[in-house]
Amino acid sequence: MTVENIRFLISRELKAGTHPGDLLEQLEDLEMDQKVELIQQLSDQEAALLFQEMEDFEQAEIIRGLDRERAMTILTDMASDDAADLIGKLSPEETQEMLQLIDEEEPADFGNLLKYPEESAGGIMTTEFISLPADIPVEEAIDRLREIAPEAETIYYVYVVDQDGHLIGVLSLRDLIASTDGTILKTIMRRNVISVNAGLDQEEVARIVSKYDLLAVPVVDDQERLLGIITVDDVIDVMEQEATEDIYRLAGAGEVVDMELTEAPVSKVVRLRLPWLMISMVGGFISGSVIGGYESTLEAIVILAVFIPVIMDMGGNVGTQSSTIFVRGIATGEIDEAEVWPYFFREIRIGITLGLICGAIISIAAYFWQGNPYLGLVVGISMLATISVAALIGTLVPLLCSKINIDPAITAGPFVTTIKDVTGLMIYFVIATAFLQYLR
Amino acid sequence: MTVENIRFLISRELKAGTHPGDLLEQLEDLEMDQKVELIQQLSDQEAALLFQEMEDFEQAEIIRGLDRERAMTILTDMASDDAADLIGKLSPEETQEMLQLIDEEEPADFGNLLKYPEESAGGIMTTEFISLPADIPVEEAIDRLREIAPEAETIYYVYVVDQDGHLIGVLSLRDLIASTDGTILKTIMRRNVISVNAGLDQEEVARIVSKYDLLAVPVVDDQERLLGIITVDDVIDVMEQEATEDIYRLAGAGEVVDMELTEAPVSKVVRLRLPWLMISMVGGFISGSVIGGYESTLEAIVILAVFIPVIMDMGGNVGTQSSTIFVRGIATGEIDEAEVWPYFFREIRIGITLGLICGAIISIAAYFWQGNPYLGLVVGISMLATISVAALIGTLVPLLCSKINIDPAITAGPFVTTIKDVTGLMIYFVIATAFLQYLR
Repeated sequence: MTVENIRFLISRELKAGTHPGDLLEQLEDLEMDQKVELIQQLSDQEAALLFQEMEDFEQAEIIRGLDRERAMTILTDMASDDAADLIGKLSPEETQEMLQLIDEEEPADFGNLLKYPEESAGGIMTTEFISLPADIPVEEAIDRLREIAPEAETIYYVYVVDQDGHLIGVLSLRDLIASTDGTILKTIMRRNVISVNAGLDQEEVARIVSKYDLLAVPVVDDQERLLGIITVDDVIDVMEQEATEDIYRLAGAGEVVDMELTEAPVSKVVRLRLPWLMISMVGGFISGSVIGGYESTLEAIVILAVFIPVIMDMGGNVGTQSSTIFVRGIATGEIDEAEVWPYFFREIRIGITLGLICGAIISIAAYFWQGNPYLGLVVGISMLATISVAALIGTLVPLLCSKINIDPAITAGPFVTTIKDVTGLMIYFVIATAFLQYLR
Repeated sequence: MTVENIRFLISRELKAGTHPGDLLEQLEDLEMDQKVELIQQLSDQEAALLFQEMEDFEQAEIIRGLDRERAMTILTDMASDDAADLIGKLSPEETQEMLQLIDEEEPADFGNLLKYPEESAGGIMTTEFISLPADIPVEEAIDRLREIAPEAETIYYVYVVDQDGHLIGVLSLRDLIASTDGTILKTIMRRNVISVNAGLDQEEVARIVSKYDLLAVPVVDDQERLLGIITVDDVIDVMEQEATEDIYRLAGAGEVVDMELTEAPVSKVVRLRLPWLMISMVGGFISGSVIGGYESTLEAIVILAVFIPVIMDMGGNVGTQSSTIFVRGIATGEIDEAEVWPYFFREIRIGITLGLICGAIISIAAYFWQGNPYLGLVVGISMLATISVAALIGTLVPLLCSKINIDPAITAGPFVTTIKDVTGLMIYFVIATAFLQYLR
């Protein structure tokens, strides 16, 4: 289909009430310059609707291609948090240019939004909230809401501020609707407002919104002045993004923003995945040199090599289990960072239990497989020790990292794998060398 | 502290406006029967507030311990979806008993809720929604909202149904507030209502709410009759639960519901984690028997064993990366299940590229380490082949599973590890045996 045809189709569908998110698949086969042309040709409103549904990296490329006027229309039409995110993705010169475009139209809210890191409360908040003074009656508040409704990001919470902008109370639209006319806001507002500091990490923000079942949370500066709000739809995006980040880190798949790993070109994905593989390769060499160090043992009893995979696999598996459960527990707040030590000791008990069970099974299996009871003993004891140590390392390394504020998910990947492999192989060969005379 | 002291503390804090979720830590040191005693002693309202914040498994145990009257007060006070979840956790006899308790008070909404699987739209919906006829004016709608506000789960969406209960339109409270008095609902309601079928999986529900930025989504039966709604706070819980499930499955940490792995007793965790380790152990033996099959090659050149870990680690790592990115992409909807094949072929290109780079590096490293260029060649070619095959297997196995409706996250764990280990080791020893005369 030509751009012109698609433009026609999209206009028609939007008029018919189709959600713009469902129209994106029509654009899939278009090149980037065709997408720019399309956005350029649609009406102001249609362009803005479609543009807002696109992925961040696409938006950044398209905005670069649009002419000044269309770029400005779209940016001023976007929610301030989305626009700030987008501008933050451009080069410093481009950012400057865009800010000038916007400043002609809107006050400098953007400067505030760009001041905070992208993954902080200040970075994801929107400044389109509703604040009212404390001394007006309910019906006046509702009248004001009716006026502002089309502009604000959400009208379901109304924030009450004093004359210096300090946040002193909150009312839900539900509270307002349920109150009788004439009631003054001050008398019905809730005063223990749950708010977040602008510098707070977005993951913490998500945890708070989830814990208290909020539809939006207010963002304040160090003096408790109201700066903006974060709405629950943005929190959902944060949760998805943070879970994806953690999953990729746990798998050692790379440091990733958004959907880069599923959509980026091959060369980019290779660059993102390669560093972890290099670490893994160095780790493999270190583990190999442990085996090299026991060359004479291995030369005497070549069959010992047969158990290298099971020792490595089992240690690796138990360690990954321990790391993953710990990392996820910290991320969801199920494990309290202040009380990790009881959890750690429980994990060691679990490791030893698993080690005893697996060690017993494997020593019997090894005995029947190779017909040597001493070999069974060596493999069984090694398995017990390897699994116990793997559970210890798998918990301890991410635990220590979280104590010094390194994301534990990063360390649960190839680093821990190497430490587990090396300790497992050393345990195995030390024990095998000690029993060498019985194995011949 | 005694139960009596804690009861006093909790009453005071709740009166002071503290969120009940923040009071749970006061209960941490109590035994289960003390918690039952506490809930029994608090006032009706206080007991309900505190109880609702507790974890599912705790709720189930406490409700068993309470006397009939208190149990009934709490259950009827809970949102219908939460109460149904809780009742679903009890034994069939207990469920029957609880339903009788409730039926004395409330109509049989619960029967409906319990009819659907726990992880379906019908299983997580609440029946406390607001529906109105199409032919009333805005001000009447708002008046009705004011009356129902304290009962409903959310008042921010109002659903319009015909006389047979079919869902025909939706209005947000924002639409109502922004409209002038006298406007008839029919003329301003949106007719393309985004709804979900009661049988839909909760993960799909979360994806729809996230995609369209909804605060609630209506649940309908096969005849499009409105049954209930799912609110965004429940969607957030679903997302967290599904992400945790996927992460644990990817790590082979067990089939887990909620926080069992971080809080359950040691014996339970061992039972959950052990099956995956058994699979892993069998996998380790299979990999080991590959090595055993090339015993004569290994006897001739013992130093070949030194490269076993790096071959296993690298194949394992690339395969885990591929599986994880694919599984997460499917879970978040970034990879379209209908168009997986282009993604698959892209992944193979990535695998070959990674294999070429890592193969080149490792062949040089192996040459310098062991001083034999042929050994470098053998290890390098093995690495290229192992990595390419690992990327293929790491994507293909979960891909095929998703086609036949098995959760791909399950297969990304120990099964894929074994297949990757076996193929990697076979490739390595086949090539080494072929080059054997040059390696001596």
